[in-house]
Amino acid sequence: MLGLVEFIHSSLIFVTMKTSPVFLDTKPVSYIIGDGALAYSKRLLKDFPRIIILLDENVKEHCLPVFKSFIPEVSISGVICIKSGEDKKNLDQARYIWDELTKMNVDKDALLINLGGGVVSDIGGFAAATFKRGIPFINYPTTLLGMVDAAIGGKTGVDFIGFKNQVGLFIDPRSVVIDPVFLKTLDEKQWQSGFAEVLKYGLIIDRELWKILRGKKISDIDNWNEIIMKAARDKIDIVKSDFLEKGIRKNLNFGHTIGHSFESYFLKKDKPITHGQAIAAGMICETWLSQKIYDFEDECLEEIVNMFDINFDRLDISEDIIPTLLDLMRQDKKVRKGKLKFSLLRKIGKAIHHVEISPEQVVGSLKFYMNKSW
Amino acid sequence: MLGLVEFIHSSLIFVTMKTSPVFLDTKPVSYIIGDGALAYSKRLLKDFPRIIILLDENVKEHCLPVFKSFIPEVSISGVICIKSGEDKKNLDQARYIWDELTKMNVDKDALLINLGGGVVSDIGGFAAATFKRGIPFINYPTTLLGMVDAAIGGKTGVDFIGFKNQVGLFIDPRSVVIDPVFLKTLDEKQWQSGFAEVLKYGLIIDRELWKILRGKKISDIDNWNEIIMKAARDKIDIVKSDFLEKGIRKNLNFGHTIGHSFESYFLKKDKPITHGQAIAAGMICETWLSQKIYDFEDECLEEIVNMFDINFDRLDISEDIIPTLLDLMRQDKKVRKGKLKFSLLRKIGKAIHHVEISPEQVVGSLKFYMNKSW
Repeated sequence: MLGLVEFIHSSLIFVTMKTSPVFLDTKPVSYIIGDGALAYSKRLLKDFPRIIILLDENVKEHCLPVFKSFIPEVSISGVICIKSGEDKKNLDQARYIWDELTKMNVDKDALLINLGGGVVSDIGGFAAATFKRGIPFINYPTTLLGMVDAAIGGKTGVDFIGFKNQVGLFIDPRSVVIDPVFLKTLDEKQWQSGFAEVLKYGLIIDRELWKILRGKKISDIDNWNEIIMKAARDKIDIVKSDFLEKGIRKNLNFGHTIGHSFESYFLKKDKPITHGQAIAAGMICETWLSQKIYDFEDECLEEIVNMFDINFDRLDISEDIIPTLLDLMRQDKKVRKGKLKFSLLRKIGKAIHHVEISPEQVVGSLKFYMNKSW
Repeated sequence: MLGLVEFIHSSLIFVTMKTSPVFLDTKPVSYIIGDGALAYSKRLLKDFPRIIILLDENVKEHCLPVFKSFIPEVSISGVICIKSGEDKKNLDQARYIWDELTKMNVDKDALLINLGGGVVSDIGGFAAATFKRGIPFINYPTTLLGMVDAAIGGKTGVDFIGFKNQVGLFIDPRSVVIDPVFLKTLDEKQWQSGFAEVLKYGLIIDRELWKILRGKKISDIDNWNEIIMKAARDKIDIVKSDFLEKGIRKNLNFGHTIGHSFESYFLKKDKPITHGQAIAAGMICETWLSQKIYDFEDECLEEIVNMFDINFDRLDISEDIIPTLLDLMRQDKKVRKGKLKFSLLRKIGKAIHHVEISPEQVVGSLKFYMNKSW
């Protein structure tokens, strides 16, 4: 933001700022990850004269008592409770938060804590970043998906007239505090949703994580602290080198192009499936595509597909919905000029983005999934 | 965003990003200012496959034809027309813009042009910065106030439940194109509003600008190109060194603490005055306060007060409203812990911020204004 380059040209002045401004705050982002993070985090909170907690009704019942019991010395000035559920990630709830913050006379000295899963951190980050042009916020994820994905990376926003995350911005929290203590409150679907993303990190960037997990069922795993530390760290590594998703961050979309079409299909049929189920299915298809393109060993494909099959039921779909799925894929934000671009696997632990795939190849992968055939 | 500092401590990982991420875009901001800027700006637009123009109904009638006639070769994909007026700077209009952008299938390759005054650039910047987590925008101010103030500095947002700019963010446009050609479309009130801010720059930072203007009526001035170049440049200089208003940018508030109380008072009485009238009155009061604190010559105070008096009528107020005005000042966003902090003049061309002023001193300045007494 320092220094100007200037040109004088007849009656015009041209002024160009040499570097771009930094928005909202110049403080670094800190992450505290692992058993004990919650208790440790009290030192992050001590400088704020007012702390407001944003949560939903489930978090209020199951996680707020845990939060308070681990850091009883932290004084909470207010609690804002929004409705839970992905379908409640909308502008009306953001408006409700702005309204509550206004009523509480919150100013820029205050801190907003987003205590909850992805819906809370997405809406809460957006509301905080735009309230009085930005108040600081800290994410305390309480779900596995939040811990390894949603709370990290600064994507905030709300859905708008049927489009996911249509209104929002990239803005990092002041800190992210990830403590597995909250996992005890999760139900099976929530475990599955997060676990699909954990497996994805193994496949796209972290061969070592994959080795720890392969062949295991979720219920067999007991070293969650280790796994969350690795997975969260994988996400941090990716977003730190490509915050605005211009390049390598696109690798995180592995499994999501086809996966999102499953998610939308079942949502429109009023039989919603979880994000985890959808992208687990998407990753099976996209691993098949990866093998077709990059020609890795059959054993590798088998190992990956097997891992998803022991943890996720196959979706109940048949070949007659393939045209519908293709249409849904073409509406994806990532589609440019009608071309389908995928993030695929070069091998286990290494992804590559911006790979163009033909509709025929996508159909092949869907048939592979539906027929469970090799 | 490069590099991590890490500490391993028992079972916790601490990860701190050394530098803060830059949001939305890393391109520098460019300003093109002066006669000919509009025609010159076509080269800024050529790389965008789609260009959408945001404006209000007045701009559509008076300025859009000028825009099109100067750069006919620029292809406009769509026009979004919002309602004019400060009281229309609300979330519903932002929602309308997001809705229109969605209907037009606008994606991140597109550019939004904010063609208009402060309301258009404030709402348009906010809507663009938050649509699909940010599309680029360029401001083309069409009012004097827009050219020297609102279009520069990245403050965007909307009013919310009676609070000015309660929802918004700091985000710079890609460029700002300031061409005095649009000034021909202004009415007298719009001239006055911008002129008060021009005089403010003379007083707080630009003695040379003040010398050019002093003793003149708006209607006597014919070198607007020169004046706008200087005033816009003054604003750029201030915001580039303090984008987030942590320090020197607060100097821009000279005249605004008392001025805003006048503005709010008349708004509540349903007799709204312009921002220019309000801050012209505010600057008379705050110049008087400045002289009390910094003890500059009487001639200097006289020169400043005279300059406002030949260009702005005094407001019709009496001493019985002083308590109301003080209450309004205490509700100001800049008040902390009930203390009134002012940005005052050390001398002509030099301001100083964060000066604590007692209510009694404020009353003195209001009486000075009302009684026109020395």
